[in-house]
Amino acid sequence: GIGADNDLYINQAIVFIEDAIQYRSINHRVDSKSLWLYRWYYSRTCQWILSLTITVILALAFIEEPSSLTVTSDVRYRLPAWNPPCGLTESIELLCFLVFVVDVSVKSYLIGWKEFWKNKWLMAYILTLIVSLTDWIVSLSFFCKESVRIRRILRPFFLLQNSSMMKKTLKSINSTLPEMASVVLLLAVHLSLFTMFGMLLFARTKDNQQDKEWVVYFRNLPDSLTSLLVLLTTANNPDVMIPAYSKNRAYSIFFILFTVLGNLFLMNLLTAIIYNQFRGYLLKSVQSSLFRRRLGIRAAFEVLSSLKETPATAQQSCVSVGALLQVLQKVEMDSRCKQAIMRSLKMCSCDQLSAAQFQKLFEELDKDAIKQHPPSPEYQSHFVQKMQFAFGHPYFGYLGNVVALANIISICVVLVMDADKQPSERDDFFLGAINCFFILYYLLEMLLKILAMGLKRYLSYPSNTFDGLLTVILLILEIATFAVYGFPHPGWRPEFMGLLSLWDMVRLVNMLIVFRFLRIIPNMKFMALVVTTLLDLVKNLRAFAGILVVVFYAFAITGIMLFKGAVVPLGNTRNSEAEFPGTCTPFSIKKVVVLHFMEKNVISCYSAHFQAEVIYCLLSVLSVHLICRWAKIYFVAWWLISSVIWVNLFVALLLENFIHKWDRRCQRESLSDIEYQRTVELMFRDVLEEPTEEELMEKLHQHPHLQLCR
Amino acid sequence: GIGADNDLYINQAIVFIEDAIQYRSINHRVDSKSLWLYRWYYSRTCQWILSLTITVILALAFIEEPSSLTVTSDVRYRLPAWNPPCGLTESIELLCFLVFVVDVSVKSYLIGWKEFWKNKWLMAYILTLIVSLTDWIVSLSFFCKESVRIRRILRPFFLLQNSSMMKKTLKSINSTLPEMASVVLLLAVHLSLFTMFGMLLFARTKDNQQDKEWVVYFRNLPDSLTSLLVLLTTANNPDVMIPAYSKNRAYSIFFILFTVLGNLFLMNLLTAIIYNQFRGYLLKSVQSSLFRRRLGIRAAFEVLSSLKETPATAQQSCVSVGALLQVLQKVEMDSRCKQAIMRSLKMCSCDQLSAAQFQKLFEELDKDAIKQHPPSPEYQSHFVQKMQFAFGHPYFGYLGNVVALANIISICVVLVMDADKQPSERDDFFLGAINCFFILYYLLEMLLKILAMGLKRYLSYPSNTFDGLLTVILLILEIATFAVYGFPHPGWRPEFMGLLSLWDMVRLVNMLIVFRFLRIIPNMKFMALVVTTLLDLVKNLRAFAGILVVVFYAFAITGIMLFKGAVVPLGNTRNSEAEFPGTCTPFSIKKVVVLHFMEKNVISCYSAHFQAEVIYCLLSVLSVHLICRWAKIYFVAWWLISSVIWVNLFVALLLENFIHKWDRRCQRESLSDIEYQRTVELMFRDVLEEPTEEELMEKLHQHPHLQLCR
Repeated sequence: GIGADNDLYINQAIVFIEDAIQYRSINHRVDSKSLWLYRWYYSRTCQWILSLTITVILALAFIEEPSSLTVTSDVRYRLPAWNPPCGLTESIELLCFLVFVVDVSVKSYLIGWKEFWKNKWLMAYILTLIVSLTDWIVSLSFFCKESVRIRRILRPFFLLQNSSMMKKTLKSINSTLPEMASVVLLLAVHLSLFTMFGMLLFARTKDNQQDKEWVVYFRNLPDSLTSLLVLLTTANNPDVMIPAYSKNRAYSIFFILFTVLGNLFLMNLLTAIIYNQFRGYLLKSVQSSLFRRRLGIRAAFEVLSSLKETPATAQQSCVSVGALLQVLQKVEMDSRCKQAIMRSLKMCSCDQLSAAQFQKLFEELDKDAIKQHPPSPEYQSHFVQKMQFAFGHPYFGYLGNVVALANIISICVVLVMDADKQPSERDDFFLGAINCFFILYYLLEMLLKILAMGLKRYLSYPSNTFDGLLTVILLILEIATFAVYGFPHPGWRPEFMGLLSLWDMVRLVNMLIVFRFLRIIPNMKFMALVVTTLLDLVKNLRAFAGILVVVFYAFAITGIMLFKGAVVPLGNTRNSEAEFPGTCTPFSIKKVVVLHFMEKNVISCYSAHFQAEVIYCLLSVLSVHLICRWAKIYFVAWWLISSVIWVNLFVALLLENFIHKWDRRCQRESLSDIEYQRTVELMFRDVLEEPTEEELMEKLHQHPHLQLCR
Repeated sequence: GIGADNDLYINQAIVFIEDAIQYRSINHRVDSKSLWLYRWYYSRTCQWILSLTITVILALAFIEEPSSLTVTSDVRYRLPAWNPPCGLTESIELLCFLVFVVDVSVKSYLIGWKEFWKNKWLMAYILTLIVSLTDWIVSLSFFCKESVRIRRILRPFFLLQNSSMMKKTLKSINSTLPEMASVVLLLAVHLSLFTMFGMLLFARTKDNQQDKEWVVYFRNLPDSLTSLLVLLTTANNPDVMIPAYSKNRAYSIFFILFTVLGNLFLMNLLTAIIYNQFRGYLLKSVQSSLFRRRLGIRAAFEVLSSLKETPATAQQSCVSVGALLQVLQKVEMDSRCKQAIMRSLKMCSCDQLSAAQFQKLFEELDKDAIKQHPPSPEYQSHFVQKMQFAFGHPYFGYLGNVVALANIISICVVLVMDADKQPSERDDFFLGAINCFFILYYLLEMLLKILAMGLKRYLSYPSNTFDGLLTVILLILEIATFAVYGFPHPGWRPEFMGLLSLWDMVRLVNMLIVFRFLRIIPNMKFMALVVTTLLDLVKNLRAFAGILVVVFYAFAITGIMLFKGAVVPLGNTRNSEAEFPGTCTPFSIKKVVVLHFMEKNVISCYSAHFQAEVIYCLLSVLSVHLICRWAKIYFVAWWLISSVIWVNLFVALLLENFIHKWDRRCQRESLSDIEYQRTVELMFRDVLEEPTEEELMEKLHQHPHLQLCR
């Protein structure tokens, strides 16, 4: 009937507007039941459950069998890690898989059969689930004793497929690959030519004294390749050329040429290529988001205009204000935006809205909330008014900064004086006293500021919130210290008295004060720019960070599988130095310990990032002990992906962000009082192109499920 | 008289046009004698003498007293270096100074008294000369026994002031300094906060077993600062966190946070800032060059138009074709350009040239020489024509590449097989035979190509010239080998027979073949782009390289003066291991040897560039041996300037170059057959703005010496 039809249209409009708000695609089923399922699937609870499931399945690696989530990482001292019984992690895994199965079925159903076959991500999702479940069954049938678990390496895929930003970024990286491959190929040619050249140059001679270079670095092809590859990471930089350089200074030309060509030219060329590819990346992605939003709004307009109650005006389709109000009440959106739209809808005198008016109403969504700080309280007393003026003045803030600086300096002085003293000789009276004094000052400052500004206005500034929170924590810690040890007096030594180490607590207090010092940064103009760029970057970087996590996870799991039991003897003996009779230096042992971390622990693998050095040491350890030729390939791949490509991607994004920000800063020097724009969408607003009517309508007519009347 | 006046005008026009060609400023004296002096000063001989003088005075450091230009750099084996007698280097220096005095006087006279006071570079030049001469007198009066020689540090200034490109680049770097300073300040804040935090975190505890981190890296404020500063260079990356990490894994968070913030964010921000500053740098510099050229041409027009023979047409000033021809004959310029201008002048039917026509004539200067290869010879014989077709075909070139690849692979195979063999076991027959075969092929290829293309056309391709040259060298070496050892036969071992080591010669032959392999690069499309970018970069980089040389030279000389005699005992004893009883590992000795290189030799200082590692090892050596606190400051400054700032400048320039090139490549995909444009001026041609008539005339009226009639 007409009523049911109208209800369907209203529901469709609600969903389309929600799609527009969340920048989602509108290409999903639009019948009543599917709409209900769609809203349920994208409800906060469902999405939260999905995220939790992904987190849980990724976190499983920390408690599964070869993990070592122990406090110390030193293999000589640490206790055996807790091993969960067979079936525990497996049942958690099964639960996660079931959630994923539901997820993939709902997703597939919602986009429809025809679209499903075009969507490679969904197919890969299903394939991953099938492989994981098969592997899970195999695992259980072996009673968890099987050695290879493929499903672990596949886990990060669940994280990847759940984020559209990450998928987009990956696509962008993918399109850069051919050019990157060219440079990597060039790098390989460079490396192999220089390897041959080096082998010819540093060949074995009759005089054994003279061919140290050959013995250590150029003994055979794999050795020479490794030496030069490590030189490319600059990790063995002077060492590799020392023997040759001792023999004849001219040999250094070979190494300098190699470093300049490889490191300075080719490596930086990689940066240039990646930056060049990513130059338009942010803009393009924001542009496509804008298109999705406009499309969603337009789709809502179209379905609302086909409501039966609308008078069939001949030419232009339009939407009644009443229907829109009805829709708006049911849409889930930011309450500020909703109110603003309602307000302008009421102010609009007309009864019918054209497409342009409809679109214009929703432009409120694109606008930044201009942050208005609540007003200061108005006091009656003249004295309090004067105090309010004094403590609300910026100079009072500056005084606070000076005090924070003084605090830092005094801690520094105490540190320098106490650095070499034994803990028993140390007198903590001075440190205790200055802590006490400064914390009292901070407390007073906070109270006076609250008096002057009112609590609401005080909290509306993030810097004040940060200050206040730190002050409260400091106060609590200080009171706890006093409760246990009494007030500081000469000869005060907290650590010898309490049950828990309150000396640690005093140190903690001081560390927090160090952080408090950071509040002076926004007062410096250029530093503020730099810091806001960095903060913006962190927001835009989530997709990249996600991909990084995926890569790290895959590498860590592969590493665990590859090097399982490779250095076990070291872990079992207390006197580990006995293991390396020939090459026994504390140095090499340390490096094997690092290798051991790498092998056994996921976190330490994370921490090993940005460390060409680690790769070097591992390579050197590996080349000495000849654990496995695959290990070398593993570490070279790791270096290429994590260190070279990812760092360059990061640099490209940073350049892109900073340069946009900088250009904009120069334009709006005068508007600096307004809170800086926070989202990427807003940063690009004046460059974005609005999609045309024709583009929108063409896209709408291509919708697989929506049949527009006209 | 009128004749003399006319001569003067003609001479002025000649000089102005030469200024325009060389992109020189026209603000110099314009009377007859000065013009003669000016042309003499900028003549090739004079400029060549000046360059030679600068080279000589810079090269003096290699033979002066603390230098060590010996073959081996190992202090244990090397002989004492030759010490020139007192007065030898000093008299060469005096000669150089005299040349500089002449240079500065001519320059000052030519720009005139009023301009001289505005020119800070000239004043600094005079000041440098006065200081150097004073120091020279002091040096001689001490009979070369004085310890500090200021004039050595001042020497690179002579290189700097002679290049306008370098002065311009320096100005550009100078304008980036405030922003760089902000980031360096932020870096310093970062470093000091983390140092304090680290000292609080890794304080001394009661348990001596547990505070290894404190003992090694955080003992006191300078130690902690050094540890973290070195961590910023990533040189001590895993080592510094191992003791703390062994105690508790959570400590790694501190180091990861420090590295991510410092290394990934702040260091790359420095790249972004420098790139942002240099984004317009190339364009701006090319734009100002264009302005200078147009100004010179316009000035020539103006002086020629005031020639008395010109009929005084009321409104427009113009120049007679005859006068211009007279000027052109005397101007020193590229003969191709001169002929082109003459030709179009003759084709022009009119007798008088307006300013616009005059300017248009000289646009020939901006045009690239479209390289036309000479035609292939035409043979009569049908058979030779067929051969010409076959061997002139690109496929023949590809076959050559395949053969070169096969050659590389065969050398590689021989290298892998012979790698571990003793020289006495080695059989060089195979290597000799393949060398012989491949060199014959290369010779045949060269001859056939010359037959097909003719010698002139063959040599007009740079890749062919490269090939031909290598082939000839290979042939000579091969014939020399055969002459001494006879033809290769099984059991052929060249190195045991001859007087000079011809085994070295065989190796040399193979190395040259490795280089020959490079000719396949232009056949790969993207690689060709990359390589041409790199070649272009090298051209644009001369100014940067010059500044780098200046910085290196100053640092090397300062280092020599600072560390004079600091590690002498090591150099004097044969058994150097005895010098380090406590910390005696081969590692630390090697590092001190590196320090020794640094101290004594300018070249090794050059080679030490790009080596955060070197700085680290030096810092560690210094902190152990406590040579001097100043040394730390010296090395930190060195790291900041050479590694951080210079490398970032380089990256900025590379990005700028590459992105322009890339944009242009996409535009002219179709025109790829034409030789790529070589100069920066041409790269930017379609972006450059022509200066307007008013700008030019305003600038001309500001000329300090030229009085225009109107």
